[in-house]
Amino acid sequence: MPKSELTKAIIDATREALNAEGPVPLHVPFLNGSEARCLGEAVESTFVSSVGPFVDRFEAELGSLTGARRVVATSSGTSALQLALRVAGVRRGDEVLVPSLTFVATANAVSYLGAFPHFVDVEETTLGIDPKALRRWLVFASEMTDEGLRNKTTGRMIRALVPMHTFGHPSRIESLCEVAREFSLVVVEDAAESLGSTYKEKHTGTFGLLGAVSFNGNKIVTTGGGGAILTDDDALADRAKHLSTTAKKAHSWEYIHDEIGYNFRMPNINAALGVAQLGQLPDFLSSKRALADKYRAAFDGIDAVSIVTEPTHSRSNYWLQTLRLKEGGAPYLDEILEGLNAAGFGARPVWRPLHTLEIYETASRAPLPVTEKLGRALINLPSSAGLA
Amino acid sequence: MPKSELTKAIIDATREALNAEGPVPLHVPFLNGSEARCLGEAVESTFVSSVGPFVDRFEAELGSLTGARRVVATSSGTSALQLALRVAGVRRGDEVLVPSLTFVATANAVSYLGAFPHFVDVEETTLGIDPKALRRWLVFASEMTDEGLRNKTTGRMIRALVPMHTFGHPSRIESLCEVAREFSLVVVEDAAESLGSTYKEKHTGTFGLLGAVSFNGNKIVTTGGGGAILTDDDALADRAKHLSTTAKKAHSWEYIHDEIGYNFRMPNINAALGVAQLGQLPDFLSSKRALADKYRAAFDGIDAVSIVTEPTHSRSNYWLQTLRLKEGGAPYLDEILEGLNAAGFGARPVWRPLHTLEIYETASRAPLPVTEKLGRALINLPSSAGLA
Repeated sequence: MPKSELTKAIIDATREALNAEGPVPLHVPFLNGSEARCLGEAVESTFVSSVGPFVDRFEAELGSLTGARRVVATSSGTSALQLALRVAGVRRGDEVLVPSLTFVATANAVSYLGAFPHFVDVEETTLGIDPKALRRWLVFASEMTDEGLRNKTTGRMIRALVPMHTFGHPSRIESLCEVAREFSLVVVEDAAESLGSTYKEKHTGTFGLLGAVSFNGNKIVTTGGGGAILTDDDALADRAKHLSTTAKKAHSWEYIHDEIGYNFRMPNINAALGVAQLGQLPDFLSSKRALADKYRAAFDGIDAVSIVTEPTHSRSNYWLQTLRLKEGGAPYLDEILEGLNAAGFGARPVWRPLHTLEIYETASRAPLPVTEKLGRALINLPSSAGLA
Repeated sequence: MPKSELTKAIIDATREALNAEGPVPLHVPFLNGSEARCLGEAVESTFVSSVGPFVDRFEAELGSLTGARRVVATSSGTSALQLALRVAGVRRGDEVLVPSLTFVATANAVSYLGAFPHFVDVEETTLGIDPKALRRWLVFASEMTDEGLRNKTTGRMIRALVPMHTFGHPSRIESLCEVAREFSLVVVEDAAESLGSTYKEKHTGTFGLLGAVSFNGNKIVTTGGGGAILTDDDALADRAKHLSTTAKKAHSWEYIHDEIGYNFRMPNINAALGVAQLGQLPDFLSSKRALADKYRAAFDGIDAVSIVTEPTHSRSNYWLQTLRLKEGGAPYLDEILEGLNAAGFGARPVWRPLHTLEIYETASRAPLPVTEKLGRALINLPSSAGLA
């Protein structure tokens, strides 16, 4: 198939923004700070596992950065979200409202608890859950009972709402929290992608009762693998930490576990990497913001596309740069992806909406017109820190 | 309370074996090999997360060491066991036979799958599941049906048997596999503690359909946090690896997840630590064996106690050195633990048997007389590599 003019133009614009020929991967870690030194220190100290000074320091620095009163570092962003949902009160058989346009881990964290994801639609501007559509859907599909909000179709209790800040762009979190209050839902934010992103100068992940951050290898700051829970609630933080260390009661030598806990604590060695990475976050944020400007300028002349920019009232970390295909561009999605990757530019579509995966095709869901449209209209472009 | 003569004698013997005054902790990592260099290499390569050359190398070296055809490195020993049980066919509502005398993670891994631990007794010599008692119990408590072995009391299917090699001492694994065959049970070994331990020169964790190893900070070899699945079955290994990487189908950019998977893959940075540690395993094994000899010699004259030694046909890694209190010594357990710890020697009792924890008190169980006796009769002594 010959490449369309549009695909050629997009490849050229990408090359221009990056000022480079391929290969340029989608996202790689940038490890030019104190990483090797911090890791050496951790080895020297012999603290490499789940207790150690770097874990404490990483948690303290994340607290300062985000304004969260308490931080609990975990082995992954998924385990952070699972734990956050559990201490927020989600129980086996409950439903949890999550976007369908998200990485599968958001829904999986719900499933691990024996609960069920219930998919809701997102909006075009923020790519996050649409508060108005959510409210309309809950008025239609749920009823308030003595035990909480019940899904009228399944009879299950809808316990929590999980806003996700897509590609680092803050969702309309204040309005979402208002809807949650109206329907007695707990808010647990999936801030896996939005470290460094704020809404009205407040850090994402700190609006809900709890928030979950990820430090996977592809994130703006990496610990190899890791995550963290953010919360202002001491009791919830204590319980999350307790559950993350097999729910073992404090004692010098006795083994008493008072809940079915997990081995989810972040090892000191991963926290050492995290401390080194966090020190570079301001640079990463500037670099990614500058790259967004370059993409915007390079794509300015192509009518069929636009570059996704931070929503109003928000400051985005621009974790993943995102090209949006307008109506004229959407039919060319596959061709554009193939063209970009063949030219050496790591590009990928947004996740396949989760309600279209076989594993979640029977899940409860609201109408998802925007999700379905965006599922064919978004392409992530090379986004590593240091590219601009 | 004045210390008994026995407690004094035990403290003196510990001091003699270690040839040191306290503090000597129970177990700390020994990181004097190529740890810092391997970590530096990982940082240099920018591969720190779940894909990278150290992960491949760590898996290959574990394969050579254990003789397992396939190795899948994971984020923890618990996640390895959970995954192994899942791919072995354990489903929601099933029961899984596990010892009550084990770390809580053995039972938790079963619970995460929505299955139920069913506790069976151990034997005095190996500290592992007693094959004869197991057989007697299954004859009494279960019945074979078209769907498999059914627990006559609960009506649930008993799907798998999880032998655990306590403190590194191989359990009677051949006999256990025979009983499992007789009752159509799948064997998944919990080899969390027994890296380097063999039975008839075959590595523990390679007798069952799958085995799970741990590299937590307190283990003989550490990756900070981590684990691995061992198996000779290619299809099971492939499925475990697939599930450990969110069950994402291989594709350059498409996101299709065909099962509810996990984020359980070991990061490259942790594998880098593991490769450095594995290189020292022969030294760790010699040192721990020499330490066992010293403890044996030092405690030789104290009638009320003995040092646990490797079972027949076995070569143990002597991960944790273990003092056994005979009948005359058991009443002094708490006093001895307090005395040893007060003298600066990190000592702890064996785990509280899991059927006595509130979280598992309603679980199915066989009679557990040996477990209950050993629960008051075992003390771990300082055991780090490098102490002898």
